[in-house]
Amino acid sequence: MNDSANPTETTKHPWQKNGRLVAIGGAEDKESDLEILRRVLDLAPEGNRQVAVIATASGIPDEIYPIYEDVFSRIGAERMHRIDVRTREDAREEQHIETVKRCGTIFFTGGDQLRLTNILGGSPLLEAIRESHEKGAVVAGTSAGAAAMSTTMIYNGQAADALRKGAVRMSSGLGFVEDIIIDSHFLERGRFTRLMEVGATNPEYIGVGLGEDSAVIFHPGGVLEAIGSGHVIIVYSRDIQSSNVAELNDGEPVALEHVIMHALISGYGYDVPNQRYITATELAEMAGTNS
Amino acid sequence: MNDSANPTETTKHPWQKNGRLVAIGGAEDKESDLEILRRVLDLAPEGNRQVAVIATASGIPDEIYPIYEDVFSRIGAERMHRIDVRTREDAREEQHIETVKRCGTIFFTGGDQLRLTNILGGSPLLEAIRESHEKGAVVAGTSAGAAAMSTTMIYNGQAADALRKGAVRMSSGLGFVEDIIIDSHFLERGRFTRLMEVGATNPEYIGVGLGEDSAVIFHPGGVLEAIGSGHVIIVYSRDIQSSNVAELNDGEPVALEHVIMHALISGYGYDVPNQRYITATELAEMAGTNS
Repeated sequence: MNDSANPTETTKHPWQKNGRLVAIGGAEDKESDLEILRRVLDLAPEGNRQVAVIATASGIPDEIYPIYEDVFSRIGAERMHRIDVRTREDAREEQHIETVKRCGTIFFTGGDQLRLTNILGGSPLLEAIRESHEKGAVVAGTSAGAAAMSTTMIYNGQAADALRKGAVRMSSGLGFVEDIIIDSHFLERGRFTRLMEVGATNPEYIGVGLGEDSAVIFHPGGVLEAIGSGHVIIVYSRDIQSSNVAELNDGEPVALEHVIMHALISGYGYDVPNQRYITATELAEMAGTNS
Repeated sequence: MNDSANPTETTKHPWQKNGRLVAIGGAEDKESDLEILRRVLDLAPEGNRQVAVIATASGIPDEIYPIYEDVFSRIGAERMHRIDVRTREDAREEQHIETVKRCGTIFFTGGDQLRLTNILGGSPLLEAIRESHEKGAVVAGTSAGAAAMSTTMIYNGQAADALRKGAVRMSSGLGFVEDIIIDSHFLERGRFTRLMEVGATNPEYIGVGLGEDSAVIFHPGGVLEAIGSGHVIIVYSRDIQSSNVAELNDGEPVALEHVIMHALISGYGYDVPNQRYITATELAEMAGTNS
């Protein structure tokens, strides 16, 4: 495995395993330059071009599998595997577990993140994915597949003024990354209020709002790198000065003083452990000095 | 005129004339408790319950006038006047000018803010409204009628990722208030990126994002007071640390470091000259000490 592109290998952070994680905001380009999916494949351990696709989140997996099989094959995947898991029973099947262990890339499609966690949570399959990830496999997910990656995830909440107590529903996610909350389709569906509410309820979480055809790579040291054609918004709530959230009844509007936001575009980064915005120039320098 | 409810009468700020300004985010309640429109009427000079409605922004003024005539009459307006101005010719008519001068409340409906400025800009009618406002009349506007109130206004920009150079169109507004930019339907249409782009192009402007059935009252000292059932979001860009906006071509995504946001609810305020968030408790105290 060649780590020359990793800007932060020297300062490993406990929240991130050995393999890369790629969270995609949904609607990633599957037609023209395929920037994000190419990058996913490039992050896999060298020599391993096998890809496992898990469409458990989707209500229409039979339509979804061929799309990703086609696109990953076009960009150089050697073998595609359908991990066709629709029940908790399926998530115990030895054959799926064996397949996942062989793959350098494990990809979660979009759909409903609650279906994903409901079926995979606590399963031997999820355990096998975690082990593969620790050994260096890249785990990638789009839309619901991205939202479910963190320890705590958002699974609902109307964007049209979600800044009301209890409007945003949270639950446990797949736990590939801690301390952050990921939201997808973030700019396109105007979901800023969702991560503001999350920050109000617990300022510790750093919100990562992914735009469509945009993604973050979680590098092992704790640095997020933005890729894709749009934006990644960081919602930083630890400096919140005051809020009325603890005094409210369900549905009442939340007041909030001093939320900080950053807008990243491709090539820019954010250092989660040190809570620091990284410009494209800086990120390129960091990658350069480590090569 | 009784100013006991004004928390900041002692420190008059040049950007605000003598009368109150009320900017409403659109879709204000016209059926049940009518909180915002009642407040508008209460801010008019004592003893003057005449209301002028200007539906110039609307493409369907004949449908709009009866709605506001009905609701203002229900809450105690004594006389309603249609300032039926559809052309620049109309905006010179002496009859309209005389009517506006008699009214304690001048209300701008929603529609298209560019139609409003295109027809009213530089007209004797606008001059008369400004004079009335300086003498104490309340000027209120909803949706486009709110967006047009400031010296510089937004008139377009798709909310689905407006954070791209040139995506947000700006022009000169009606000039009732300076140094800020007002956006309406802000949470419901996910317009955060619009005010982030405005802040990137000129960090001096303080963005005021009005939720639906929510409004701000601009008190003469420079304090905004939030009212209504939803949120008012303050977008503060003066602490932006870095941005690539000057280097971009049209349509390219904007990177932005450190935008500060506050969420106000009814009773909360923001001190524009001192750039300070004011909790409901503080705002009530400020009003109390000045009474």
